Amino acid sequence: MKWNIYLSGEIHTNWREEIKLHSQKENLDINFTEPVTNHEFSDDCGITLTGSEEKKFWHDHKGAKINAIRTRTYIEKADIVIVRFGEKYKQWNAAFDAGYAAALGKPIIVIHQEEHQHALKEIDGVALAVVDDPIKIAPILKYIIDGKL
Amino acid sequence: MKWNIYLSGEIHTNWREEIKLHSQKENLDINFTEPVTNHEFSDDCGITLTGSEEKKFWHDHKGAKINAIRTRTYIEKADIVIVRFGEKYKQWNAAFDAGYAAALGKPIIVIHQEEHQHALKEIDGVALAVVDDPIKIAPILKYIIDGKL
Amino acid sequence: MKWNIYLSGEIHTNWREEIKLHSQKENLDINFTEPVTNHEFSDDCGITLTGSEEKKFWHDHKGAKINAIRTRTYIEKADIVIVRFGEKYKQWNAAFDAGYAAALGKPIIVIHQEEHQHALKEIDGVALAVVDDPIKIAPILKYIIDGKL
Amino acid sequence: MKWNIYLSGEIHTNWREEIKLHSQKENLDINFTEPVTNHEFSDDCGITLTGSEEKKFWHDHKGAKINAIRTRTYIEKADIVIVRFGEKYKQWNAAFDAGYAAALGKPIIVIHQEEHQHALKEIDGVALAVVDDPIKIAPILKYIIDGKL
Amino acid sequence: MKWNIYLSGEIHTNWREEIKLHSQKENLDINFTEPVTNHEFSDDCGITLTGSEEKKFWHDHKGAKINAIRTRTYIEKADIVIVRFGEKYKQWNAAFDAGYAAALGKPIIVIHQEEHQHALKEIDGVALAVVDDPIKIAPILKYIIDGKL
Amino acid sequence: MKWNIYLSGEIHTNWREEIKLHSQKENLDINFTEPVTNHEFSDDCGITLTGSEEKKFWHDHKGAKINAIRTRTYIEKADIVIVRFGEKYKQWNAAFDAGYAAALGKPIIVIHQEEHQHALKEIDGVALAVVDDPIKIAPILKYIIDGKL
Amino acid sequence: MKWNIYLSGEIHTNWREEIKLHSQKENLDINFTEPVTNHEFSDDCGITLTGSEEKKFWHDHKGAKINAIRTRTYIEKADIVIVRFGEKYKQWNAAFDAGYAAALGKPIIVIHQEEHQHALKEIDGVALAVVDDPIKIAPILKYIIDGKL
Amino acid sequence: MKWNIYLSGEIHTNWREEIKLHSQKENLDINFTEPVTNHEFSDDCGITLTGSEEKKFWHDHKGAKINAIRTRTYIEKADIVIVRFGEKYKQWNAAFDAGYAAALGKPIIVIHQEEHQHALKEIDGVALAVVDDPIKIAPILKYIIDGKL
Repeated sequence: MKWNIYLSGEIHTNWREEIKLHSQKENLDINFTEPVTNHEFSDDCGITLTGSEEKKFWHDHKGAKINAIRTRTYIEKADIVIVRFGEKYKQWNAAFDAGYAAALGKPIIVIHQEEHQHALKEIDGVALAVVDDPIKIAPILKYIIDGKL
Repeated sequence: MKWNIYLSGEIHTNWREEIKLHSQKENLDINFTEPVTNHEFSDDCGITLTGSEEKKFWHDHKGAKINAIRTRTYIEKADIVIVRFGEKYKQWNAAFDAGYAAALGKPIIVIHQEEHQHALKEIDGVALAVVDDPIKIAPILKYIIDGKL
Repeated sequence: MKWNIYLSGEIHTNWREEIKLHSQKENLDINFTEPVTNHEFSDDCGITLTGSEEKKFWHDHKGAKINAIRTRTYIEKADIVIVRFGEKYKQWNAAFDAGYAAALGKPIIVIHQEEHQHALKEIDGVALAVVDDPIKIAPILKYIIDGKL
Repeated sequence: MKWNIYLSGEIHTNWREEIKLHSQKENLDINFTEPVTNHEFSDDCGITLTGSEEKKFWHDHKGAKINAIRTRTYIEKADIVIVRFGEKYKQWNAAFDAGYAAALGKPIIVIHQEEHQHALKEIDGVALAVVDDPIKIAPILKYIIDGKL
Repeated sequence: MKWNIYLSGEIHTNWREEIKLHSQKENLDINFTEPVTNHEFSDDCGITLTGSEEKKFWHDHKGAKINAIRTRTYIEKADIVIVRFGEKYKQWNAAFDAGYAAALGKPIIVIHQEEHQHALKEIDGVALAVVDDPIKIAPILKYIIDGKL
Repeated sequence: MKWNIYLSGEIHTNWREEIKLHSQKENLDINFTEPVTNHEFSDDCGITLTGSEEKKFWHDHKGAKINAIRTRTYIEKADIVIVRFGEKYKQWNAAFDAGYAAALGKPIIVIHQEEHQHALKEIDGVALAVVDDPIKIAPILKYIIDGKL
Repeated sequence: MKWNIYLSGEIHTNWREEIKLHSQKENLDINFTEPVTNHEFSDDCGITLTGSEEKKFWHDHKGAKINAIRTRTYIEKADIVIVRFGEKYKQWNAAFDAGYAAALGKPIIVIHQEEHQHALKEIDGVALAVVDDPIKIAPILKYIIDGKL
Repeated sequence: MKWNIYLSGEIHTNWREEIKLHSQKENLDINFTEPVTNHEFSDDCGITLTGSEEKKFWHDHKGAKINAIRTRTYIEKADIVIVRFGEKYKQWNAAFDAGYAAALGKPIIVIHQEEHQHALKEIDGVALAVVDDPIKIAPILKYIIDGKL
């Protein structure tokens, strides 16, 4: 079985590539999916593709909806949803993804640093694994898929 | 029909009471539900009810789960979920609730100030109404329930 | 059992009142629901309740979403959805409601005149009854609920 | 991942071929599906395949149901439903498809000209993208699938 | 809790009244529902309510659909579906109801005589109780509801 | 897309092979599934595989359940369910399959002769096509899959 | 809102009455449900109500199914499922109930003593609260329902 | 069609390999899945992968959740769930899996020895086949998949 794994959250570091690389090294049969991680594209896709808006609200609104076609489809097809909370920004869309995945009954793995532990307790509470570094993800996936520690 | 409306999010102001008061004045047939808004209770319910923990992670974990029995039940029974984002804190559980409600297909109304517009664009994108002040909620509910502006 | 029946579609004649009146005469235990049928309110609720918009698209968009909170909730709670297509206008929202109800597995009754028969064949195809006059609805409801012709 | 995309609505121009052509040029991994677009076949399939009817209602009824086997299966398997409203006819089945897709939680993209904006506000209200020309679809699909603008 | 129990199947004897009577004697809190059991009404409701048909097929078709509004609604709301197969006729609609209820996960109780055992083995196979006489139903309901033998 | 089509019902003629043959001639991309059509195997599989029973009821019960593993899995995976009612026997399991498929929202095509029309009206009422001869099935499938009459 | 709470598991002590008593003292608005806790009735209901069996397997089988009508209905209607594992017996039906409730997404509270901790780790893993004594349940319910510690 | 079959339960004998071997000999098209059957890995995966815990409860808790990512995904994708109860231990997770699978409507086959018959009556009651030896599984699968005894 090929596993579908969605990588949600922080888009300013290369943690997704790191996980993919290590998973590949372990020959794990995974199809990783992710949001569009080009920040500018993600912000402007709505107006670029469907016409400009004067108000920032609608500019963002159009973009958020176009992005949702991709992200929600991928979350719904995912066997596992991994959500990373980074050090900066509000990252409400990461928490939103976690809630969305939780309501669909998807297994959730959360990555965040110690400092955010209290603020993320509800999300950690539904997660099936919580780690503080993306480096710990590939070994978890290896265990889940291959049964090896 | 009695409407079940869940009031999620910020717990440091009395916005819930305000909405209830104005809804009552309009004689709207609503059963409002909400999380436990006593911050201390919410944080400590897990250890108080099921035994203390040395690690903060498990202290919070136990509490988050006990709270989830209440919050998730109420969200699942809700006809409308209203989520307020305040000015402070990460409020990831509010965003999580929004995602959870969205995946269940619940109509969502979001309350937040202008300054958070960009950070909340994904959540605004699934909302059926977005306002910047709780004072605007009761008239919306009046229109939805009674059809009057 | 009290039956929930949603009356969708045409809002320019008093067909809903007619159905309610005849159903009441037959003492049928029905909770009728319907969209906001005040045309002006329905068009302007969005901007009135959540702020004005310059563009007609967003003006309508906001209104459509507020109205959806009511209509979709009622359709989802309905035991039967009755959709009337009138003589004028595009009435795409009536057809949309029919599609929405069909996907939810709701029993659908359609009211339309002979002239629209061909254009409505797909909707008639999923309906469990098709009639050409609202006057025929109450006897159908009486039969369904009381088992009497 | 191969995306399943259903092209609903107007059948009198070659907009579907246009979208397929441009998507192919971009090497997008898409399986497009669509209703039977041969108007005559679509109208007469019921009686041709299962026996003639004297009444136009049953003639159409039989056809609508045979067509529904195809269209509803494709909509249910679709990752995205694109609905085009043309300039002529009532096109109630397009609006019905949109409602059906909406209730199933499918991402919807709507194509229509400015003149129909007000009449389509409810359908635009659930759509994740609204454009006025089929030429704008392929770039949207490219962004969703490949993340490129 | 009031139990909703649907009584499907044979309509030529008064077995439903018998079950209701004995359940009432035991003060069981049950809301019994059933199809329209007036055979003539059941056969002719379609044409009486929505217009006559020359072909027997459409005469019956219209009736079957009107009846389905009632029967399917009741089956979907039922906590238990009891299906009786009598001695005569094909009774395919009883078997259809059993299949419909089974797919919805409803607990099914079947009543039939020994002679039909082999032909009903698939339906008995999904039933949670099989008895040969309606007289045995009330004690079963009493046990389920009151826990008393 | 490969279509999954389940062929339910009568097992005493070779109608399934006929449909498969004609579908193959038309190069239709179909994966046909069916119950075990060896009557003896179907009757005795339970006791052969899991141990003999003295009572006929349990003999049949065990067989019905083993067969259900196959039939229900295939019905749930089917895109279309075709049910044939033959001239003899009660065929309650065919009607049960139709009910099961209907509750799952599967498109149903029914094959039966004129004489059974009245007794099958409820099942015809949910079917999307009704024909009197298996020879008419392949052209229907060709139209649905290839859009050609 | 009245909460439906199902009390599953051990039937040899009066823990259910204890929970009910304390909940009543706190005026909690709860409708408690439970399996038939009369051991003899529970074992013999099948043969008493639907006829004797020589084989112990079928004797038990009939009883298990009759009991399932009650237990599964109550679990499906429950807002919370509380499962107690006692000191003796295999109690596989308690673990089965926990699995059944988990798949339905019901909040689960588990009661068991320290000695069973390792053997129950999977069930504790899905529970939202784990306690070692029924006396701790009423305060949890009070917090969930009234928000008071 | 390739069948997905999950092998749940007892992990101290090589019954899974036995079933796989015999199924392979029969050329059955099956993708068998199973929990991690290395007992030590299964117990320690949580702390090994996500950090050590002093309390045995959390040590086990973390492991149970990591294992659940694998087991629940496989059960949800399974066409058939086979559960073996061995001679020793409480095996509550096997019963939990059975309950979980039952609520999802999965066909269940149970393997256990005579001595556990009474204690497993509820689980046998939902199973579609019950056998006392793993050697009997491959012939059942052969019949289900190939229709041959």
